[in-house]
Amino acid sequence: MTQIFDNPADFADEALDGFVAANRGYVARVDGGVVRSTEMTPGQVALVIGGGSGHYPAFAGLVGPGLAAASACGNMFASPAAGQVYRVAKAANAGGGVLLSYGNYAGDVLHFGQAQLRLNAEGIETRTVLVTDDIASAPLDQIEKRRGIAGDLTVFKVAGAAAEAGLNLDEVERLAIKTNHRTRSLGVAFDGCTLPGASEPLFSVPEGQMSLGLGIHGEPGISEHPMPTASELAELLVARLLEDKPDEAGDRVVAIVNGLGTVKYDELFLLFGKVEKLLDKAGLTVVEPECGELVTSLDMSGLSLTLLWLDDEIEQYWAAPADTPAFRKGNLTPRARRELAGPEDAVAEETEKATAASADLGRLAAAVLAQVRDVVVEHEEELGNLDAIAGDGDHGIGMRRGVDAAATAGEQNAAAGASVERVLTAAGEAWSERAGGTSGALWGSAVIAAGIALGNRDSYRAEDAAAAVDAFSSAITALGKAEPGDKTMVDALLPFQDAFRKEHDGGATLSGALAAAAAAATEAARRTADLRPLKGRARPLAEKSLGHPDPGAVSFGLITERIARYIQSEPATSDLASSDMAAAAGNGAKND
Amino acid sequence: MTQIFDNPADFADEALDGFVAANRGYVARVDGGVVRSTEMTPGQVALVIGGGSGHYPAFAGLVGPGLAAASACGNMFASPAAGQVYRVAKAANAGGGVLLSYGNYAGDVLHFGQAQLRLNAEGIETRTVLVTDDIASAPLDQIEKRRGIAGDLTVFKVAGAAAEAGLNLDEVERLAIKTNHRTRSLGVAFDGCTLPGASEPLFSVPEGQMSLGLGIHGEPGISEHPMPTASELAELLVARLLEDKPDEAGDRVVAIVNGLGTVKYDELFLLFGKVEKLLDKAGLTVVEPECGELVTSLDMSGLSLTLLWLDDEIEQYWAAPADTPAFRKGNLTPRARRELAGPEDAVAEETEKATAASADLGRLAAAVLAQVRDVVVEHEEELGNLDAIAGDGDHGIGMRRGVDAAATAGEQNAAAGASVERVLTAAGEAWSERAGGTSGALWGSAVIAAGIALGNRDSYRAEDAAAAVDAFSSAITALGKAEPGDKTMVDALLPFQDAFRKEHDGGATLSGALAAAAAAATEAARRTADLRPLKGRARPLAEKSLGHPDPGAVSFGLITERIARYIQSEPATSDLASSDMAAAAGNGAKND
Repeated sequence: MTQIFDNPADFADEALDGFVAANRGYVARVDGGVVRSTEMTPGQVALVIGGGSGHYPAFAGLVGPGLAAASACGNMFASPAAGQVYRVAKAANAGGGVLLSYGNYAGDVLHFGQAQLRLNAEGIETRTVLVTDDIASAPLDQIEKRRGIAGDLTVFKVAGAAAEAGLNLDEVERLAIKTNHRTRSLGVAFDGCTLPGASEPLFSVPEGQMSLGLGIHGEPGISEHPMPTASELAELLVARLLEDKPDEAGDRVVAIVNGLGTVKYDELFLLFGKVEKLLDKAGLTVVEPECGELVTSLDMSGLSLTLLWLDDEIEQYWAAPADTPAFRKGNLTPRARRELAGPEDAVAEETEKATAASADLGRLAAAVLAQVRDVVVEHEEELGNLDAIAGDGDHGIGMRRGVDAAATAGEQNAAAGASVERVLTAAGEAWSERAGGTSGALWGSAVIAAGIALGNRDSYRAEDAAAAVDAFSSAITALGKAEPGDKTMVDALLPFQDAFRKEHDGGATLSGALAAAAAAATEAARRTADLRPLKGRARPLAEKSLGHPDPGAVSFGLITERIARYIQSEPATSDLASSDMAAAAGNGAKND
Repeated sequence: MTQIFDNPADFADEALDGFVAANRGYVARVDGGVVRSTEMTPGQVALVIGGGSGHYPAFAGLVGPGLAAASACGNMFASPAAGQVYRVAKAANAGGGVLLSYGNYAGDVLHFGQAQLRLNAEGIETRTVLVTDDIASAPLDQIEKRRGIAGDLTVFKVAGAAAEAGLNLDEVERLAIKTNHRTRSLGVAFDGCTLPGASEPLFSVPEGQMSLGLGIHGEPGISEHPMPTASELAELLVARLLEDKPDEAGDRVVAIVNGLGTVKYDELFLLFGKVEKLLDKAGLTVVEPECGELVTSLDMSGLSLTLLWLDDEIEQYWAAPADTPAFRKGNLTPRARRELAGPEDAVAEETEKATAASADLGRLAAAVLAQVRDVVVEHEEELGNLDAIAGDGDHGIGMRRGVDAAATAGEQNAAAGASVERVLTAAGEAWSERAGGTSGALWGSAVIAAGIALGNRDSYRAEDAAAAVDAFSSAITALGKAEPGDKTMVDALLPFQDAFRKEHDGGATLSGALAAAAAAATEAARRTADLRPLKGRARPLAEKSLGHPDPGAVSFGLITERIARYIQSEPATSDLASSDMAAAAGNGAKND
C-alpha cells in the first residue's frame, strides 16, 4: 500500500521533485520530466525515454551518461502529455536528433507520437522505437502488438550506449530496433499494487494463486496457476521464453530477473540462481546479468524474467559503462556539470513577432474555441450518458475539462497578440494535458496540427484553411489509428474533411464550406449508430452500443456545427473570413 | 509476503548462491558468506561486515572495492555462527588485519566476538566497531546500547573507503568509531514482514497506525501514531534526529532515506524532498545523499531517516568511489579478478602434524564429548521443562542439537588422529552452528577456547588442564557478559572454575579436581533457584522463575558431574590422565 504522501493528486509531482533533490549530480527538472544535469557531447543523439510514474527506476532513474538523455514523466501509471514529451525532448536535444523509446502502450504511443510530429515539424529529427518484449501480451506473429515491460532496460541501455559512443541517429535507431527484436520477457503477479490515496489495490490475484503474464498495471494475463515452488517458476519462465526465442538467436544471453515491488532481493536472487542453471543446461551462456528492481509497479507483488539474445555489437553496448541514479556500470569519464536554467524557463518559448494577419486569425481562433467550450458545456451531460451506454461515461466530462483549458489558453494568447499558430498550439497542449485520455490527446494534437499548418504568415488564403482542416484530420488518423467504420470520431471526421475539400475546390466561401462539412459530419455521426465498434472506447461492449451513435463522433458533429454557425453569423469574423480567406478563394492567391 | 522458495529452510542459502551467480564480477562464495572476487592490495585492512540475511543490500550487496572486503551471512534475521565469521574473515584478510563491523545485536556480538577471539589467537589482528545509530533503542547517555539500522551504511562506507585508501587498522578503526558517533537514525513501520514459509507476518502494526522507532525485526518502538502525512512524517523524523545530534556536529550532513521493503521509490523520494527542505531550513547542507533501499527487512512496510554529521575527513571517505553489487559511486580503477579456489576449499584447513600426546588427548576429548552427549540426551526433556517455566522451553533441544554435532565432529577428528586442539575447535564450531541461540554459541565458543589453550604440544601438564578450564570460563564470561547472580550458566561456571583452580593449586589429581569442581557447580546450580534473573533467557518472566534453578546452570552441573565420573572410572583415560597430566601435577613439569 502506498503510504507516504500529502495530497494524492500531487504524488507523482512531489516524488519527482524529491528524486531530483536526491540526484542533483545526475538530473535537473524540466517541465514534464528530467534531463541530464551533466554535459552531453554536441551532436550526440539524445535518447528520450519515459512513461507513467510508479515504475522507478524506470524511467527517470535511467537518465545519465551512457543511458538516457532525458525522461518524460507522466502521472501515476499515465502517459506524459504530448507537450511534456515535446518540451523534455527539446531540452535534451544536443543537435544529433532524438530517439524516443518507451513501452508499447496506447496512451504513450499517442502522446509521444504527437510530440514526435511536432519535433520533426520544428526541424529536430526524431524517431521512435517501441519496446515490445512482453510475450504474454500477443503471439509472436503479432510481435508489434506486444507491451513493453522490463525489456525496456535492454533497449534503453543499448541505444543509450550507442548514442554515447557517438553513433548517428540511423545507427542508434537500428541498434534499438535490433535489441528490441532480440528481447523477450514474461512476468508473473501474486498481488496488485495500490495507487496513492486509494484504499483498495488496482487489481488483485486470488490468495495462493499466481497469474502468468499479468501486465504491470494489471492488464490480463495468460493463465492462473497455484503458487509454484521457485524451481517450478524458474522452469516455467525459462521454457516459455526459450519457445519464443528470436530467429537469429545465438548462445549468449543477458538474463534479467526483475522485481515489481514487494518480491524482495533474496527471493529474486534465489530465482536467478535457478534460472541461470536452467539456461546453462539449455546451452546458453549468461552474460552480465541483472537481478533487482529495474522496472517496478509501486508495491505490486510480482516479478519478470527477461532474456536478450546477444550478438557482438549488442553485447558491446550492453556491457558499456553507464552512470545514472539507479543503474551504474563500469567506469565513465566524469562529466562536467551542465548549466541549466531554472525549471520554469528551461525551455522558454522563443519570443514571437506575430504578423497582423496571424494575430487577427489568432483572435478568431480564440473566439471559436470559446464557442466550442459553450457547445460542449451545453451537451456535457448528454455526451456522458451516451458514452455510459457502452463505455465508461466520461466523454462529457473529459471533453469539458479539455476544452475549458484550451479556451482559456487560447484567450490568454490571443489577448497577448500571439499568432494563430501560438494560440492553437497552446490551446491544443492545454487540451491534451487537462482532458487526459485518448480523445483529449487526439483533440489536442489535432488543434496543434491545425495551428502549425496556419503558421505565422503575412496573409491567409482559403487554401490555408483547407490545409489546416487536412492537418487536423491527419493528426487524428495518424495518432488514433482508427479506420472508417471502427465507430469512432473518425467516422464523422473524414466526411467533414471530404465535404470541406469538395466545397473549397468548388469555390465556396469559408463559411459555406464549413456549413456543408458540418452537416456531413452530423449526418455521419448519426449513422454510427448502425456500426459495431472495433476500436476505441466502445469495443468491450460492442453489442450494447448497437443502435446508439458514437459519442466522439457526435461531439465532433456538434462542435463543427457550432463553429460553422459562428463563422457565418458573427459580423467581425464573417468580415475577416470573407476579406482574408473566402475572398481569396474566389480570386486566387492575393499574395503567397 | 515472501513467496519465492522451494524449501523455506534452504531460503537464505539458495538466495546467497543466486546472489553470487548474479554478481560473479564482485563476489565469490566461501563457507559462511562472500568475499570479494577481485584482488585486494596486499597489506590493506579487510573490512568484514555481516549479520542475518533478509536485509539486502546489507550485507552481501556491499562487498567490493571501496567498501567491504567480505560479508558473513547468517540465516534469515539470525547472526552468522562464529565459525562462519571466522572463516569469512580469514578468507578476506589481506595481511593488514581485520575490522569487524556490524549492527549492535546480542547474537551478532556473541558470534562475531567469538570469531574475533579466534582470529586474534591465530595472529590475525582483529578489531570490532559496532554500529549504534538507532536513537529509538536507548537514550543518548546509553548510546552503546543502541541497535544498528541503516546507519550501517555510513560506518561501512567510511571504513571501507579508508581501508581502500591504505590506512592502517588503527586509523580505519578510529574513522569507523567517529562515523558511528556522528550517525543517527530513526525508523517507522507501517506493517511487518513475513519470513519464508510463514503464513503470518513476524509482527504487525494496527491498520492506519505508524509505529515510531520500531526495530527492523519488530523490536519495540517508542510510540504509536495515527498515519501522518508525508510532511508531518518528515518533520517528526528530522526534529527527533536534530534533538539527538552529536556534540561535535557541524553544518554539513549526509541524509539517507531508506526503504525497508514495500515503501517504494516514489514514496521515498517524496519524503526525501521534504526532509531536504527541512534540513536546509535548519541551516544544514545536505551532501551526497542516498534515497532508496539500503538496509531492508524483507517485505516490511517502513522506512528510516539517517543523518551523518560530516567533518572534512569523513566527507572525503563518504564521497570516495565504491563499486559493489548494490552500491556504486564514482570511478574506480577496475581490479583484476582474484584467483579463488572453489567454495569447499577456499579456506582449507592447513594440514596439521599432531603430536602423539595431543592426538591421545584428542581421543580423550572425543570420548568426553560422547559422554556429554549421553548426559544431555538423558536429561533433554527435564531441561526443556525447566526452561519452559520462565523461558521458551528450547534449552533441552538446543543443547541436544549442539552436543550431537559436537560429539560427531570430535569423533571424526579424533579418529583421523587430529590434535586435541583440532578435535575441540571442530567440535565447538559444530556446536555453535547446529545449536543456534545463545547457549549454543557460548558452549561452542568455550569448547574452542579450551582446544586452543591445549594446543598441539609434545606433552601436557596438569597446569594445562587448569589453563583450559580458565580459557573455557573466560570465553563464556567475555562473550555472554553475564555477571554472577544474573541467574545464568555463569552462576555454576565460576564456582566450578574456582574449585578446580583451588584443588589444582593444592596438588589434587585431574580426576580429583574435576570431581570437586563438578560438585561445586551442581550445588551452585541448585542455589540459582533463589535468584531473580537479570539477564539471559529468563529475564522477561523473572517472577515465574523464582524457586526454580536456571536450566543453563543445571545442564552445566550435569555435564561436569558426568565428565568427572568418566575421567575417574575409565581405566584407559584414567591411565592417560594420571601418566600425562595428573602425575605431572604431583611432580612438577616433566619437560618444557
